[in-house]
Amino acid sequence: MPVPPRSPRVSVTEMTELVLPQHSNVLGTAFGGTVLAWIDVAGAICAQRHTGCVSVTAAIDSVNFVAPIRVGDVVILSARLNAAFRTSVEVGVTVQVEDRITAHRRASVDAFMTFVAVDDAGQPKEVPPLLTETPDDERRAREASERRAARLARR
Amino acid sequence: MPVPPRSPRVSVTEMTELVLPQHSNVLGTAFGGTVLAWIDVAGAICAQRHTGCVSVTAAIDSVNFVAPIRVGDVVILSARLNAAFRTSVEVGVTVQVEDRITAHRRASVDAFMTFVAVDDAGQPKEVPPLLTETPDDERRAREASERRAARLARR
Amino acid sequence: MPVPPRSPRVSVTEMTELVLPQHSNVLGTAFGGTVLAWIDVAGAICAQRHTGCVSVTAAIDSVNFVAPIRVGDVVILSARLNAAFRTSVEVGVTVQVEDRITAHRRASVDAFMTFVAVDDAGQPKEVPPLLTETPDDERRAREASERRAARLARR
Amino acid sequence: MPVPPRSPRVSVTEMTELVLPQHSNVLGTAFGGTVLAWIDVAGAICAQRHTGCVSVTAAIDSVNFVAPIRVGDVVILSARLNAAFRTSVEVGVTVQVEDRITAHRRASVDAFMTFVAVDDAGQPKEVPPLLTETPDDERRAREASERRAARLARR
Amino acid sequence: MPVPPRSPRVSVTEMTELVLPQHSNVLGTAFGGTVLAWIDVAGAICAQRHTGCVSVTAAIDSVNFVAPIRVGDVVILSARLNAAFRTSVEVGVTVQVEDRITAHRRASVDAFMTFVAVDDAGQPKEVPPLLTETPDDERRAREASERRAARLARR
Amino acid sequence: MPVPPRSPRVSVTEMTELVLPQHSNVLGTAFGGTVLAWIDVAGAICAQRHTGCVSVTAAIDSVNFVAPIRVGDVVILSARLNAAFRTSVEVGVTVQVEDRITAHRRASVDAFMTFVAVDDAGQPKEVPPLLTETPDDERRAREASERRAARLARR
Repeated sequence: MPVPPRSPRVSVTEMTELVLPQHSNVLGTAFGGTVLAWIDVAGAICAQRHTGCVSVTAAIDSVNFVAPIRVGDVVILSARLNAAFRTSVEVGVTVQVEDRITAHRRASVDAFMTFVAVDDAGQPKEVPPLLTETPDDERRAREASERRAARLARR
Repeated sequence: MPVPPRSPRVSVTEMTELVLPQHSNVLGTAFGGTVLAWIDVAGAICAQRHTGCVSVTAAIDSVNFVAPIRVGDVVILSARLNAAFRTSVEVGVTVQVEDRITAHRRASVDAFMTFVAVDDAGQPKEVPPLLTETPDDERRAREASERRAARLARR
Repeated sequence: MPVPPRSPRVSVTEMTELVLPQHSNVLGTAFGGTVLAWIDVAGAICAQRHTGCVSVTAAIDSVNFVAPIRVGDVVILSARLNAAFRTSVEVGVTVQVEDRITAHRRASVDAFMTFVAVDDAGQPKEVPPLLTETPDDERRAREASERRAARLARR
Repeated sequence: MPVPPRSPRVSVTEMTELVLPQHSNVLGTAFGGTVLAWIDVAGAICAQRHTGCVSVTAAIDSVNFVAPIRVGDVVILSARLNAAFRTSVEVGVTVQVEDRITAHRRASVDAFMTFVAVDDAGQPKEVPPLLTETPDDERRAREASERRAARLARR
Repeated sequence: MPVPPRSPRVSVTEMTELVLPQHSNVLGTAFGGTVLAWIDVAGAICAQRHTGCVSVTAAIDSVNFVAPIRVGDVVILSARLNAAFRTSVEVGVTVQVEDRITAHRRASVDAFMTFVAVDDAGQPKEVPPLLTETPDDERRAREASERRAARLARR
Repeated sequence: MPVPPRSPRVSVTEMTELVLPQHSNVLGTAFGGTVLAWIDVAGAICAQRHTGCVSVTAAIDSVNFVAPIRVGDVVILSARLNAAFRTSVEVGVTVQVEDRITAHRRASVDAFMTFVAVDDAGQPKEVPPLLTETPDDERRAREASERRAARLARR
């Protein structure tokens, strides 16, 4: 069994779900609230893996739903650490939907979320820096910082 | 029993929840995914009341979590129609948390969400215009249009 | 943000739910157990708001289901404090169902429930008296006392 | 495997549940709404077994909670057909709680519920008469009729 | 109210469930994972009743699904203690499905599960021996020992 | 977005879950029934991906729980197609638990499950053969056939 070292490198969390009637709305497609809860779990795991402690949802900068998800489909969520700030991290989450007959995957939802690392008393804790290694890593970290600055400016 | 006419006026949906252990994370505070699912339900009801048909989540422009919610607290969600576009509407949702001992209410979360009205085949449908009556109504509609323009520009 | 003072006045809790397939029975209408759980939450919040502490279900004097609730409908629950006794309160809960197309509201369920205020060890605690201000307040309190007397006599 | 004939005799449905944290309130005891939902399921099965069709909750005449239920305890629900009317039946449900250490059982909740038998379109259907065989059967049927008469008179 | 003595005799736990849309897959039959969770609850209660303490799932030797379960059907689970080892017990669980129209019962699933009794720190605890009284009791205990030996040999 | 061709090659489904209080038993570890439901979802997705149609749980040959899972931990499920028979497939599922502080992963559960591919009427359908490419693929397929033969012999 591989033991992943707690590393400052960019990490990706992949999560898979099967869409059941209990997840659906009156049209037989996945209910928005269910999909948001799945996105939050994937993002929280990704954040927790980098920070090494419980990571609670602090902000969402955007979520776009571009294709519906039907009961019976498989949903694949990928959460990727984009940037680490002082006590928070930004995670990008993409959701693909896989047709149960054709196995064709389509982009369905993407989201940018910020999580704060907290100790057992719920107080914010410093997080390890993120080691960006590729130009793509650097672009993502830079865009995350811009989203954060814009969000703080809106307050 | 009052029968609310389907009206073009700004409408507000109020929703109340009691936070139980089934809604919590390992720290005993409300799990982010649960709160997002509640916000989505409140927004969808508000959208459905204006559009008169099923309204599915299309986008979230921002969500800010500013105060934690503990098991035992009461949560009050208010969803307000900000703007109506061709087949979609923007809804603002605020979440307050009410301490069970002091009854003190604090702002906890706010969100801007866009819902698309769909027919029974899941195809987008035109929505009624929104009648803005006060300067505050107009400001909200204008800001919603700006958020929509910024979102479309980012694609 | 308004801070409601803990007041001896009659208070009303309003709760809204969207009926999803996960709430339904084999006919596509809301399952009775789901509706009872919603009624219990609305009543418990109303009781907790008056008593300032956790309030657990002690008795139900009657529940009447008069109109079915379909998947896709919106449900509005209103819980109102009718009377305060030594360590318990009576709450009346009415449920209306709002048709998703016409927005027409119909009475669907009404219930009378008694909650006991308890401390953190689960022991009953004295509750504040209820200030009745209108003839309607007084009638409700009197009828609640009669239901309580009849219930205690049946033991 | 025994095949129970659809019989006009009094039938009893027994249901068992293990109380988990997902069923609890902030005090670590079973949440009222959870227990009410279990009572409704037990009653609906008992009604369905007599009527041979889907049976929906029509009324509750009383529920009394007399002992708390803790996480980890076992709950035993017994639902018994008391009376059959034209399109409805009355079911009595008792809930016992079994301590996980001592196995001691205590009465926890009792309820009287009325279910209406419906066809696949949700319309009321006539139900088979109930064959009362013992003085106890007759007493229960008589008391159920009295509760029904009192309930109809209150409308 | 009968108080069952904690006894070394073979005990049977009976559990009943009503299959709702929230338990179903895309075909309208009960989802496998839901049925497995019900089997686990029935087995855990049966084990807990013999051991007098929390009993956690340690192994499953076989589960066979022989007939589908449809939404609207009633499910009857019977869990029976087959054998007690040093800190664990084997429980056999059978699931019958009862057609809602004909009341006909068919065998649907059977399973053999092993539970370990644990103290409040989660450490294994010795369990009382099982008193086998009939040839059938003895056969079941012997077969359970054979399954256990085969399982340990496979490691 | 990569589009995976429906291929006869061995496929692996990876699923990740965050353990919340709603998944726990009275000891604060994951409830067996919850873990079994997750295993069933992972196995069903893996089977569906190979067969291209809904795949329902037919049998479990063994499940071993070797390490407890605590609230707050991350759970990683890996489901791998071992063998394809005429209308069924065998899937092996392993569950690892990742400590939230150290990120150390330990084997927690492993299971062998059989799923039957069904058409929209719920009738068994032939499944594509599995292309075994490595000695390990062949060993897994052979062992799956042996488990199947032993299971059919036990009937």
